[in-house]
Amino acid sequence: MFSPLIDELMSALRALPGVGPKSAQRMALHLLERDREGASRLATALATAVEGVGECDRCRTLTEQTLCSICANKRRNQALLCVVETPADVLAIEQAGTYQGTYFVLHGHLSPIDGIGPQDLGLDQLHSLLAAGGIEEVILATNPTIEGEATAHYISERAKKLDVPVSRIAHGVPLGGELEYIDGGTLAHAFSSRQRV
Amino acid sequence: MFSPLIDELMSALRALPGVGPKSAQRMALHLLERDREGASRLATALATAVEGVGECDRCRTLTEQTLCSICANKRRNQALLCVVETPADVLAIEQAGTYQGTYFVLHGHLSPIDGIGPQDLGLDQLHSLLAAGGIEEVILATNPTIEGEATAHYISERAKKLDVPVSRIAHGVPLGGELEYIDGGTLAHAFSSRQRV
Ligand SMILES: [Zn+2]
Ligand SMILES: [Zn+2]
Repeated sequence: MFSPLIDELMSALRALPGVGPKSAQRMALHLLERDREGASRLATALATAVEGVGECDRCRTLTEQTLCSICANKRRNQALLCVVETPADVLAIEQAGTYQGTYFVLHGHLSPIDGIGPQDLGLDQLHSLLAAGGIEEVILATNPTIEGEATAHYISERAKKLDVPVSRIAHGVPLGGELEYIDGGTLAHAFSSRQRV
Repeated sequence: MFSPLIDELMSALRALPGVGPKSAQRMALHLLERDREGASRLATALATAVEGVGECDRCRTLTEQTLCSICANKRRNQALLCVVETPADVLAIEQAGTYQGTYFVLHGHLSPIDGIGPQDLGLDQLHSLLAAGGIEEVILATNPTIEGEATAHYISERAKKLDVPVSRIAHGVPLGGELEYIDGGTLAHAFSSRQRV
């Protein structure tokens, strides 16, 4: 509409999740009209993060440091290891604010159809971590999907061979969730996993 | 949470309108986990646009070219000049798809309290454009706010002195708008501006 550089900016903004053509237009014009400083800061932050951010040596979450701030924190319980699929899962658990252990991030789940095997998920690295001793419990927090369950099962089998205790987080009706709005799969799981009180 | 570069990226993303802390987190992790190419492209697009985009020599809309694509388009009617407050207004009118004239972008409205006077809105440049001849109608499309109306009034007075015909776009109940949901100011205006049929 206006010029090639503005069209390219509107188009590039659509790489952001949840940003459609209308939002991209609004964002581009807002930055150019009212916040060029913010736009420059964002350009630098993006370029620097893409260049510098890799994975934590111990837990594989995103960080530009050798160890992420959780693994480097002496007050975290290094004997507890929670296995999750993504860094976003780490963030969600941290924001819940009760877990005091550490993490291991798979960056996905086993998916033979997509050619994603154990080595793509760092499971050899996880094996070495468990074999080195000092982990008292592995908490499996992969998603309750078919692939997430298969991944959890695979990891639990390998951990058991090393005599490391394994647990799986509970799945069921969310607290505050109203039964009538819960999907059938969750309800069925909640019934089959019921515990005597 | 993860590291300084990721925190800075999440923080910098909040320069985007409508992006709160949760969206910024989701965007940062999405780009770093799944679309680094998109992130690099966005970084370049932002930096290039901030550096290169200025204003069209004739209409003051955003462009990195001497003349924007509308002013440079020989099929547009250069004798019609629509005055708007922002480039976003140009986009909205273009997307409506019926206007075939050209524009003049004020980048704001008169606001003595904020120290914004005629020279900040390019009104001397507008005066020269009208004085040069060839404009058969100025269409005032500033917003129907107190400041937008005052700006429209100021421009119409100056244009009349140059004997250039001036019109104001119609304001009232939007097509398809239901009366019961229209604000009182719009309704009052719709009544006072009623036309005999
Ligand atoms: Zn770590
Ligand atoms: Zn122009």
